[in-house]
Amino acid sequence: MDEIKLGIQYAFQTKNPLTLAVSGTGHCAMEAAVLNMVEQGDKVLVAVNGFWGERVTDIAKRLGAEVHQLVKNPGEYFTLEEIEKGLIQYAPFLFFITHGESSTGVVQPLDGLGELCHRYNCLLLVDAVASLGGTPVLMDQQGIDILYSGSQKVLSAPPGASPISFSNRARKKIYNRKTKPSSFYLDMEELAKYWGCDDNPRKYHHTAPINTFFCLREALAALAEKGLENSWKLHKENSLYLCEGLQKLGLKLFVKEPDARLPTVNTVFIPEGYDWKEITEYIMKNHGIEVSGGLGASAGKVLRIGLMGYNSTKFNVDRVLRALEDALQHCLKNKL
Amino acid sequence: MDEIKLGIQYAFQTKNPLTLAVSGTGHCAMEAAVLNMVEQGDKVLVAVNGFWGERVTDIAKRLGAEVHQLVKNPGEYFTLEEIEKGLIQYAPFLFFITHGESSTGVVQPLDGLGELCHRYNCLLLVDAVASLGGTPVLMDQQGIDILYSGSQKVLSAPPGASPISFSNRARKKIYNRKTKPSSFYLDMEELAKYWGCDDNPRKYHHTAPINTFFCLREALAALAEKGLENSWKLHKENSLYLCEGLQKLGLKLFVKEPDARLPTVNTVFIPEGYDWKEITEYIMKNHGIEVSGGLGASAGKVLRIGLMGYNSTKFNVDRVLRALEDALQHCLKNKL
Repeated sequence: MDEIKLGIQYAFQTKNPLTLAVSGTGHCAMEAAVLNMVEQGDKVLVAVNGFWGERVTDIAKRLGAEVHQLVKNPGEYFTLEEIEKGLIQYAPFLFFITHGESSTGVVQPLDGLGELCHRYNCLLLVDAVASLGGTPVLMDQQGIDILYSGSQKVLSAPPGASPISFSNRARKKIYNRKTKPSSFYLDMEELAKYWGCDDNPRKYHHTAPINTFFCLREALAALAEKGLENSWKLHKENSLYLCEGLQKLGLKLFVKEPDARLPTVNTVFIPEGYDWKEITEYIMKNHGIEVSGGLGASAGKVLRIGLMGYNSTKFNVDRVLRALEDALQHCLKNKL
Repeated sequence: MDEIKLGIQYAFQTKNPLTLAVSGTGHCAMEAAVLNMVEQGDKVLVAVNGFWGERVTDIAKRLGAEVHQLVKNPGEYFTLEEIEKGLIQYAPFLFFITHGESSTGVVQPLDGLGELCHRYNCLLLVDAVASLGGTPVLMDQQGIDILYSGSQKVLSAPPGASPISFSNRARKKIYNRKTKPSSFYLDMEELAKYWGCDDNPRKYHHTAPINTFFCLREALAALAEKGLENSWKLHKENSLYLCEGLQKLGLKLFVKEPDARLPTVNTVFIPEGYDWKEITEYIMKNHGIEVSGGLGASAGKVLRIGLMGYNSTKFNVDRVLRALEDALQHCLKNKL
């Protein structure tokens, strides 16, 4: 467990003592982040430019928070100016934003965001499930107060144990709650004792998914051996190579600005006249590759091609481009 | 997932359509059971004769329930008369009881309990984490409304996916809630769609710990091949054999009534003058066997010896008896 903690601290680029893995998948980490921070009536501002903001809105509302949304179109990201307006208008104590919007393929710039939030006495909560290890996120430097990710994306471990970390600012809020968090399983003050994150003696809390913890430990070690910079570079290169190839096939990328493209989840418009399900099923059946349709607002509009961790290679890009080319010819033929 | 559902229905002896595995360990299933049933202000009665009743009390209170306790000494179980008095006195809508009290080694008789609860318009919630497969629990026949277990006890799969099932009575309460459950990750109405438990089309809900699901599927298949009756018989025989051996070593069993002894977790008093930690550490170091100390109210009083699933064999009983004999001599010598 200590080694997992160290591995997460490296991957997140943080020195936070309150750093651990929750015993569940990415959604569970999202819920752990929100339920430990939020109390009844607390004001939360959620950036919504795809699926994940809507999900956090749902979770925070269940917990009795007063939730406000900052909304942009799927495929776009938020500027500091837009966020500042929201912070002024709603005066939230917590601001949520998705770093890697996997439903749309957008990466959210994070520089300056922590500082901005803190200026308005607001904590910054960032979802890095689809982005961690694939594109830079620097928890301490960017002033992120709560950060979580999953194990089965870039880390390439099985799903079921999810890294999470809290800044001292966030930790103080947790330790000074007026009410206990809604969950015992995810209660961070209890988990801190289980994981040896504070000065208390270690204490049994629940049975952890221990086999998955061993996998996560290995995955974090592999990332550390490769090095974060190398991992970011590799994901960027393979994504650029894929995007070039997609455009050569005559396809149009969903995210306009090249810098806003998430290298781990690449989104491309479904060309007119095609049925996305026919394409993805053809590719699965004939090429053994899973390409996803959209999710939420992007459903029916895009195909999503994942290039994450172990899977992010030039060889795989060539395979998926061949598969797509074949599918586009085949599915067109079917229509003629 | 359909095969896991069938396997759980067999292990639980139920036909409930709302049967699935939650994406977490036993504690997560406990929380899923409580948070889906309970709304703010609901009256809950909890049977406390060890650790698990206290844990459920904590969870239900976090959710704003009005919680009352029926308390007995650790090592004892509840009679139908005692429970009936509690139902009359507190008029709860939900009654919680632990089938296999793993902190004390007590098995709770369940016959007639469902009928009794229903007579008082109360739903019956049973924890079978430590007992499922090791001693009979018959969900439909015993009128249990909510039943859950873990994957890493008798089922001998890795921890991280936990069977749970809801009767139609319990399901109706869930589908008619006035407020959404506090958790999205564990929201049974959403999970029912994910698992294809109702007439709705299957719908993505969260990423499940899919590798652990495959393990659970195998474990359930192995139990079905062996047969529940055989599994119950084997656990009973090995536990009796262990209890005999413990008594021959001059040790005193913690649970007085032979019929009330849980065959999966066997509790024995720490003999006077011995330090439990010295014994368990000696056995771990010299015999490679983990014997546990007590938990909660039984801490410092008992040793707990698990005989579960794959691990419940005569061969292992002989090993642990030899190890204990050795430890008792060694730890005594140290004191002289």
